[in-house]
Amino acid sequence: MTETIAYFTEDDSVAAVTTRVGDGTDPRLARVMNALVAHLHAFIKDVELTQAEWALAIEFLTNTGQMCDGNRQEFILLSDVLGVSMLVDAINNRRPDRATENTVLGPFHVDGVPEYPMGANISKDGIGESCLFEGRVVDLSGAPIPGARVDVWSDNADGFYDVQQPDVQPPHNNRGVFVTGTDGRYWFEGIKPVSYPIPDDGPVGQMLGHLGRHPFRPAHMHFIVSAPGHETVITHTFVRGDDYLRSDAVFGVKKTLIADYAATPDGPTIWKSTFDFVMTPEATQ
Amino acid sequence: MTETIAYFTEDDSVAAVTTRVGDGTDPRLARVMNALVAHLHAFIKDVELTQAEWALAIEFLTNTGQMCDGNRQEFILLSDVLGVSMLVDAINNRRPDRATENTVLGPFHVDGVPEYPMGANISKDGIGESCLFEGRVVDLSGAPIPGARVDVWSDNADGFYDVQQPDVQPPHNNRGVFVTGTDGRYWFEGIKPVSYPIPDDGPVGQMLGHLGRHPFRPAHMHFIVSAPGHETVITHTFVRGDDYLRSDAVFGVKKTLIADYAATPDGPTIWKSTFDFVMTPEATQ
Ligand SMILES: [Cu+2]
Ligand SMILES: [Fe+3]
Ligand SMILES: [Fe+3]
Repeated sequence: MTETIAYFTEDDSVAAVTTRVGDGTDPRLARVMNALVAHLHAFIKDVELTQAEWALAIEFLTNTGQMCDGNRQEFILLSDVLGVSMLVDAINNRRPDRATENTVLGPFHVDGVPEYPMGANISKDGIGESCLFEGRVVDLSGAPIPGARVDVWSDNADGFYDVQQPDVQPPHNNRGVFVTGTDGRYWFEGIKPVSYPIPDDGPVGQMLGHLGRHPFRPAHMHFIVSAPGHETVITHTFVRGDDYLRSDAVFGVKKTLIADYAATPDGPTIWKSTFDFVMTPEATQ
Repeated sequence: MTETIAYFTEDDSVAAVTTRVGDGTDPRLARVMNALVAHLHAFIKDVELTQAEWALAIEFLTNTGQMCDGNRQEFILLSDVLGVSMLVDAINNRRPDRATENTVLGPFHVDGVPEYPMGANISKDGIGESCLFEGRVVDLSGAPIPGARVDVWSDNADGFYDVQQPDVQPPHNNRGVFVTGTDGRYWFEGIKPVSYPIPDDGPVGQMLGHLGRHPFRPAHMHFIVSAPGHETVITHTFVRGDDYLRSDAVFGVKKTLIADYAATPDGPTIWKSTFDFVMTPEATQ
């Protein structure tokens, strides 16, 4: 053990804590925890947090933890609205300029969704404005990637995912998996997604209220695009023109992810949205 | 609202979040939250937190919240072992050099404890090494403070507070309230306190284990000394010579709070501990 600071003082508060870390501690854990303590103490000194504010923070964190159950993860929501989820995603997914950017996964992805043939319609309740989604999955050189798995999901026209309304929506409503052929193309029918609020009936929603922030996310279609030898892309395409593009409650919007939705008067669907996914090679270990 | 940053980027992550705060927001709340976001993002960038570490943090915070109930406050414990509780206390209780320093309140204070005449014995189970606690309550000039309320509590010889063992210890075991007379003196009998572990069967205890830290607190007698016109002193006196003085799990020890425990071969008690409390005038608003 490094020499411990004998007794806690305001000036030496960080060292008082960090010098306690034992010799056998995993070096990465020690580094992360010691940086956490340094920034946490700096924050408290910065604002000279009062005892009453501290008590409020303890209560808020406790309520946030107690709001969590099998269907609700209020701490992820907290991370989302503080920009933490997007920051961690950004740090861990730095990509070349041309490559498709990541954004947050969100809480509504489901495993075990059926694979459909290209062109299938994933809107099982038929509610909403029909939309053709299409484009290509390519590598950095523009060459098509065959065998790419395109896993998609969106809310319905009322702003809810199927899993939020198990008694209302058919199972796997607005979800599907598609696999590209040799041309790297994908196409399927769904609906034009709509904006929706994140769950705001808990501590995080209250916090947003106190901060004068709304809980809405701009309309988006979720995509996970994966292919052997390439970095998996977890992302959305956002509906250009949505009111909330510049104020997404979870900061998920990136400029390159805003997609055109073109009216298609002659087509079988009302809208058509074209978006190409550009994948980077998997990092070699 | 200040001009919002259009879209989240790694570089502008802090501004992306802080510029969202609404115009009508309480200025203190805005300041605290924006400082929190700045330090939190700086921490994450500093260590380049991985997705797996982020997921672990979410799980840890969730478990910590779910460990809390009417008798257990795991987030206060977390605050304690990270030095946060002591830091907030230090910032909010800066006092002149001669004045008695504060330390953490701890979770075991109880309201409604009987007031006893000076000299009463607060050890109701008679277990442990008897000790006379005595001293004076004075102001910064050394003048006695009459009518000072001295609220004291300690663990028993097994290292448990009465409230931790309601079926084992008599009610109000090792607790009492005393009020000083014109001489400002206090004296009562109790037992020499013993060191004890903070509750370590939850997420915080696991974290201490991973960091190679033990959960023990050095032996101490708790005091709340209050008197009209003076700042309330929430503190402990620690037993000089205790093994854990330099490694208190919650960083509560201050050099000035270490008290002598003198053997008293001729006295009615085995030990005697003398400690004077020096109070500062209440801050005028
Ligand atoms: Cu910082
Ligand atoms: Fe979504
Ligand atoms: Fe204690």
